[in-house]
Amino acid sequence: MTAASRGRRKGSPDTKAAILDAARTLFAENGFSGTSVRAVAGAAGVDPALVHHYFGSKDDLFVAALSLPVDPRAVFEVIATQGLDGAGERLLRGFLSVWDDPSIQPSMIGFARGLLDPSASELVKNGFLEVVIKPLGTALGIDDPGRRMPLVASQMIGIVMFRYLVRVEPLVSMSADEVVAVYAPTIQRYLTGDLS
Amino acid sequence: MTAASRGRRKGSPDTKAAILDAARTLFAENGFSGTSVRAVAGAAGVDPALVHHYFGSKDDLFVAALSLPVDPRAVFEVIATQGLDGAGERLLRGFLSVWDDPSIQPSMIGFARGLLDPSASELVKNGFLEVVIKPLGTALGIDDPGRRMPLVASQMIGIVMFRYLVRVEPLVSMSADEVVAVYAPTIQRYLTGDLS
Repeated sequence: MTAASRGRRKGSPDTKAAILDAARTLFAENGFSGTSVRAVAGAAGVDPALVHHYFGSKDDLFVAALSLPVDPRAVFEVIATQGLDGAGERLLRGFLSVWDDPSIQPSMIGFARGLLDPSASELVKNGFLEVVIKPLGTALGIDDPGRRMPLVASQMIGIVMFRYLVRVEPLVSMSADEVVAVYAPTIQRYLTGDLS
Repeated sequence: MTAASRGRRKGSPDTKAAILDAARTLFAENGFSGTSVRAVAGAAGVDPALVHHYFGSKDDLFVAALSLPVDPRAVFEVIATQGLDGAGERLLRGFLSVWDDPSIQPSMIGFARGLLDPSASELVKNGFLEVVIKPLGTALGIDDPGRRMPLVASQMIGIVMFRYLVRVEPLVSMSADEVVAVYAPTIQRYLTGDLS
């Protein structure tokens, strides 16, 4: 490989990788709100317009930097268009369709372990919750998504921990229908129920 | 300090510390069910009777090895003696009385971080759930504590994560009453409700 072909050029895979590397570093260090597209572009040595060209909005760049096997916003979009009735069950079924898929599960586990690392707490708080979780509440049209969606996440994280990471029974052996039977009423109440 | 005073003697603090060190190592490596009092005694170079003398049962030794600032079984005992009615609320209030106490919270956070470490999953599964969490369900007299108590724990772990470790709003700023209002119905349903 020549020096020229290793260099960062417009449109090269190297440039995209450099932008994602810079984004991962800055989002992890400064959180989502503390990171600008301009700062990512600067760290990657490219023009901000190129970042937008490749990755779209800052939200899109954040999700790309998470390197998830599935864009959770695509799963959530389907859930949101069908209204509030039964949203808890649809949320769980969408979640299980990703997590229980053996071809996707290993990378989801890697992703979840990363989010649980103490050093990733800014990414969870100012990134994942803001960019991925709360917009689902907004799209569903629930009351006060900034309050209710973290409650939803506080239950989902326990399912992730016990069903996929620590692997605690009965969580591991429960069928998707059983998970829905146990947890959908909880999620639905956090989304739309009386919490006072 | 002379060599003799550093040696392990019956009744010395060194002996207790050596037993706890051995217990921590073996429980972490082999889980609760895979560790015998005899093996701990052997690793510490003492007689098994001495382990029982200092620490009581294997369950007691396990809880001592966790180095918790409070024995959770003492908190749970109070909850269990008051019956199933309102047990979800009492469980949450007992939990918050420990976790929200600023003199206890730092060591609880250290403990929780330890349990969340991937290498601790045996301790969580075969130790903490079996020795600490499930017996509360048995003492309460709930139906199928082996199934229901992990569901309870799957929600409690999300509260620990968001209120104390990652510190996500609104969890951090919620009063104890607000936490109870949101979560007690969930916990009560996992303890006694219809989950099918």
